[in-house]
Amino acid sequence: MDRKEKRALELGEILTSIQDDLDKVKDNLTSLTRVDFDWLSEQLGYVVKSDGKGIRPALTLLAGKFYRYNLGYMLAMATAVELMHTATLVHDDAIDKSNVRRGKATIYKIWGGETAILLGDYLFAKAGEAVSDTQSPRVIKLFSQTLATISSGEINQLLGAFKTDQTREDYFQRISGKTASLFSLSTESGAILSEAPETSVNLLKEYGFNLGIAFQVVDDILDFVSTEQTLGKPVGSDLAQGTLTLPAMLLVEHYPQDNPIKKVFQNIDREKNIARAIDMVRNSSITDECYKIASGYCHKARQTLSQLPENSSRPVMEALADFIITRAK
Amino acid sequence: MDRKEKRALELGEILTSIQDDLDKVKDNLTSLTRVDFDWLSEQLGYVVKSDGKGIRPALTLLAGKFYRYNLGYMLAMATAVELMHTATLVHDDAIDKSNVRRGKATIYKIWGGETAILLGDYLFAKAGEAVSDTQSPRVIKLFSQTLATISSGEINQLLGAFKTDQTREDYFQRISGKTASLFSLSTESGAILSEAPETSVNLLKEYGFNLGIAFQVVDDILDFVSTEQTLGKPVGSDLAQGTLTLPAMLLVEHYPQDNPIKKVFQNIDREKNIARAIDMVRNSSITDECYKIASGYCHKARQTLSQLPENSSRPVMEALADFIITRAK
Repeated sequence: MDRKEKRALELGEILTSIQDDLDKVKDNLTSLTRVDFDWLSEQLGYVVKSDGKGIRPALTLLAGKFYRYNLGYMLAMATAVELMHTATLVHDDAIDKSNVRRGKATIYKIWGGETAILLGDYLFAKAGEAVSDTQSPRVIKLFSQTLATISSGEINQLLGAFKTDQTREDYFQRISGKTASLFSLSTESGAILSEAPETSVNLLKEYGFNLGIAFQVVDDILDFVSTEQTLGKPVGSDLAQGTLTLPAMLLVEHYPQDNPIKKVFQNIDREKNIARAIDMVRNSSITDECYKIASGYCHKARQTLSQLPENSSRPVMEALADFIITRAK
Repeated sequence: MDRKEKRALELGEILTSIQDDLDKVKDNLTSLTRVDFDWLSEQLGYVVKSDGKGIRPALTLLAGKFYRYNLGYMLAMATAVELMHTATLVHDDAIDKSNVRRGKATIYKIWGGETAILLGDYLFAKAGEAVSDTQSPRVIKLFSQTLATISSGEINQLLGAFKTDQTREDYFQRISGKTASLFSLSTESGAILSEAPETSVNLLKEYGFNLGIAFQVVDDILDFVSTEQTLGKPVGSDLAQGTLTLPAMLLVEHYPQDNPIKKVFQNIDREKNIARAIDMVRNSSITDECYKIASGYCHKARQTLSQLPENSSRPVMEALADFIITRAK
């Protein structure tokens, strides 16, 4: 089936069954902005209202429904993963000096890099507070380990920036760290907190991991094929920051001579070569090749689900695996 | 007694009774550097070997000795507070664009601000892992709350930078957040983890808090009266960064007209006016006034101790309160 035909359901429709609890997570996030300091309240309101997709908290809630769904623990954990995600974005924008995200000026742009560092730290702290409300040292440890994985993955990305001699293994290791680890934390923690047996914990962790890899591959495709309006940030941002994503890697492989990616990374006619790279990716088989790889991971994710008990979450998580591929932003 | 006569004991001598356990904390920190990635190992080795005073982990161990001293929990917690402290320093240096700390080039200087942000995040994560080993959700929550307090305190400092119209209340609120909160976490967590009764938890928390305030006031004095060699960073750094510390505040109060601090903050003849401010603080009663205030907090800390059971920690913690005032760096 063509991926465009498949785009039947929007994320909101897919998540209908957990919408009430997702709204409670949103309430938790909003209540964070009620602090004594006006300036902090303003900054927090700004990031919290940035309207992320909420896939990660949704994954926690969904994974928690296979066994004993403890609402209090689930909301705490879902809030924690969303806060950790938000904190990493605030820091990423400071690192990449990004001016726009989700169609809005970034914290970095408005308040500067210094405030972005500290506000990110504050959000990590609030994430830590939320996760401590799960009362589970195992989940808290997992949460911290994930942050260690994400940040070392990001340092790795920095060190690899502007280098074209990277292998696919490097790429998948990198996105495992920076993206899939948080997806798998989201599902694994939901499973642990619902007292799932270890085999189910592992299956749900694996589902999240594969979904996360697919999500990042699609993100990397969209950076080439989408529009600035849809993305909420300029197309080709990854290239501009020297990040060699899968489509860029394939472009280097397919056209080793006279390659625009190499030129961008060597800072030769940057703008022109970014535009040329985008054009070449769009008008080649590369997009399809990348989607095929992403679909492979979504397929793995779906297979994992089939080994779990049937419940209300399973069809939602299957639909999510489809959504990840067909999403436009 | 004059504070110089009092400088009888060095920190190492004061802490002799807990040195074995402090060494184990150091081993924990060193073991962090054994990671798969060479680059990360190098960066971690660099920060971990930066040879901090280790006052915070010492406070945790000392506070843990009044009731049931559980070595495993104590080492985990002491490691966590030192890691949190290190992480905040790495971020602070990126924020302040500081090139030198403790006589060594900073992570910011060597690897850049981007790496400093991520390495700081990694250290927070490792601190989170360590604190999760205490198995105490209460302590874990306290730990996260402290990080929230520190980072919002630091944002507050940023927003107040280069402003001379600050009150003493502003100053004490700021240093409570950025310094005393971590000192009080160190002692309070040691108390909680040793199953101290709540009154003792509060007394030990209060001791840590007052000690932390005194520590920061002395830090702020030393920034004026010490030497670059002793401090391991340039004298007058606070002024250069626009931070109005207590001595600077008193200088503004005492000499409202033609004041060098105001000129530094207005960026008028910066270097000359920093030198002039240092000179004026050194050759006035300001240093003594500030030391008197710091001593007041140390006195409060000592008084708190007198309400706790007598044990091996009490004399050490009394000596620490003296050391805080008499220390040269």
